[in-house]
Amino acid sequence: MAKDNKITIYDLALSTGATISPFVWATKYALAHKGFEMDIVPGGFTGILERTGGKSERLPAIVDDGKWVLDSWGIVEYLDETYPDRPALIPHPGIAVLTRALDTWFWGAAVGPWMRCYCKDYRDLSVPEDHEYVTSTRENMLGSTLEDMQAGREDRLPGISLALEPLRKALYEAKWLGGEEPNYADYRILGGFLFTASVAKIPALADDDPLRDWVDRCFDLFGGLGRHPGLFPLFGLEQREGDPDPWMKGGPWGGQAKRNTGPESTRAETEAITKSKAG
Amino acid sequence: MAKDNKITIYDLALSTGATISPFVWATKYALAHKGFEMDIVPGGFTGILERTGGKSERLPAIVDDGKWVLDSWGIVEYLDETYPDRPALIPHPGIAVLTRALDTWFWGAAVGPWMRCYCKDYRDLSVPEDHEYVTSTRENMLGSTLEDMQAGREDRLPGISLALEPLRKALYEAKWLGGEEPNYADYRILGGFLFTASVAKIPALADDDPLRDWVDRCFDLFGGLGRHPGLFPLFGLEQREGDPDPWMKGGPWGGQAKRNTGPESTRAETEAITKSKAG
Repeated sequence: MAKDNKITIYDLALSTGATISPFVWATKYALAHKGFEMDIVPGGFTGILERTGGKSERLPAIVDDGKWVLDSWGIVEYLDETYPDRPALIPHPGIAVLTRALDTWFWGAAVGPWMRCYCKDYRDLSVPEDHEYVTSTRENMLGSTLEDMQAGREDRLPGISLALEPLRKALYEAKWLGGEEPNYADYRILGGFLFTASVAKIPALADDDPLRDWVDRCFDLFGGLGRHPGLFPLFGLEQREGDPDPWMKGGPWGGQAKRNTGPESTRAETEAITKSKAG
Repeated sequence: MAKDNKITIYDLALSTGATISPFVWATKYALAHKGFEMDIVPGGFTGILERTGGKSERLPAIVDDGKWVLDSWGIVEYLDETYPDRPALIPHPGIAVLTRALDTWFWGAAVGPWMRCYCKDYRDLSVPEDHEYVTSTRENMLGSTLEDMQAGREDRLPGISLALEPLRKALYEAKWLGGEEPNYADYRILGGFLFTASVAKIPALADDDPLRDWVDRCFDLFGGLGRHPGLFPLFGLEQREGDPDPWMKGGPWGGQAKRNTGPESTRAETEAITKSKAG
């Protein structure tokens, strides 16, 4: 298996050369985590069925020494089962379950809303032969023209950023979502940030976002796998008059983040919640 | 340690005798998971500092053969570190990180909103000497009277239920959040459901909610730890005319749940997204 330590991966990329699909991004990180080199088959949205010789309409797809494996989760399971002596992507079954929960939340709270903020950029950045397909399929999915959907994004971006507090909370006490080392939990969620970086002609997150350290460290992994020159800067969202804070600067989070180490540690909170209404 | 296999836990309960605190609930499950019996010190919201001899203003707190341990996460870490030969609550460091992320989402999406739906019931169910404290602190936290905050909850409950799709998605492919066996990820999230069951004078979730199987199995663990007679039924929310579905009956979730096993598996989705707008 994996002749010359190389696995073939079918890409889904833009005219910049940067991968757009969050699932392909996560799969590239998964292959790198397992120590494989990648033989990348380039391409965009259209013609996937032809490109894969009828094997798949969707990407990622990998070919390991002639064996086709489809589906981002299917690939992760295949890699851990087939190469158990290499670093585990899912080191405990609960990691997969919790990552699926977190990923479902993350799509609803951020990746979907970001897609609507950047859908026209997304189409314009796709390779010319994809323009018509991307326009018609995304307008079907979004129920609106790309121009109308993208309009007013400056008003929506701060709220999407603020909705990422669950990630900030988790990474406040840990270096990686995987704990002491990154694993597929990190790569899966990172895929949504890399998708956004591939299309974000204006930044999605503030310069001082506490998530930046984790995002930067993820981008730097595996020789800078996330440092593709076609990506746009994710950080640099400016706070306009009247915008909400793009992250919860007043933390900790509702008394949940600070640990109770005795009455001294809870006194300020106790005073706040028992204060007289006149006070 | 743990003389007679028993650990003391300070309870935070209502007049029904049922524990209200989600963190105390999670801690009771954690102690049971580690195979300990519990010596429960009863009590409500007021007088915690006196009850614990000045050790803490907040619960849970445990005493293991004279050693005090505070804070729900602190207790979990103590139990795994001190009793490594008993079943692990956190079998991999990433489980703690992902659970904190999921728990932060769950509080914002469900536990907090449920608290606002049941805040008057909550006060009325508390022990008489707690009524004034619960009323004033919760009105400070919520910025409204308990009666005003609770009003209109019938209009809010279906949406809160629908927001739980990340848990439904995760438990669609797995028996427990912990994977093949329950662990602290299950108990931590379950704590929010048990809190709600302790105050929910009207049900929060539909009878046919896919989460029900997991909730019921969690309630049944450890000899029916979650079957306290003071709890109210969580399931039984009726769909009124005009209410949204209380869970995503049309699943799977945006093409994310169904796995790509080849062109047959994605054909219906492809047809839907490429359909002519006139069609």
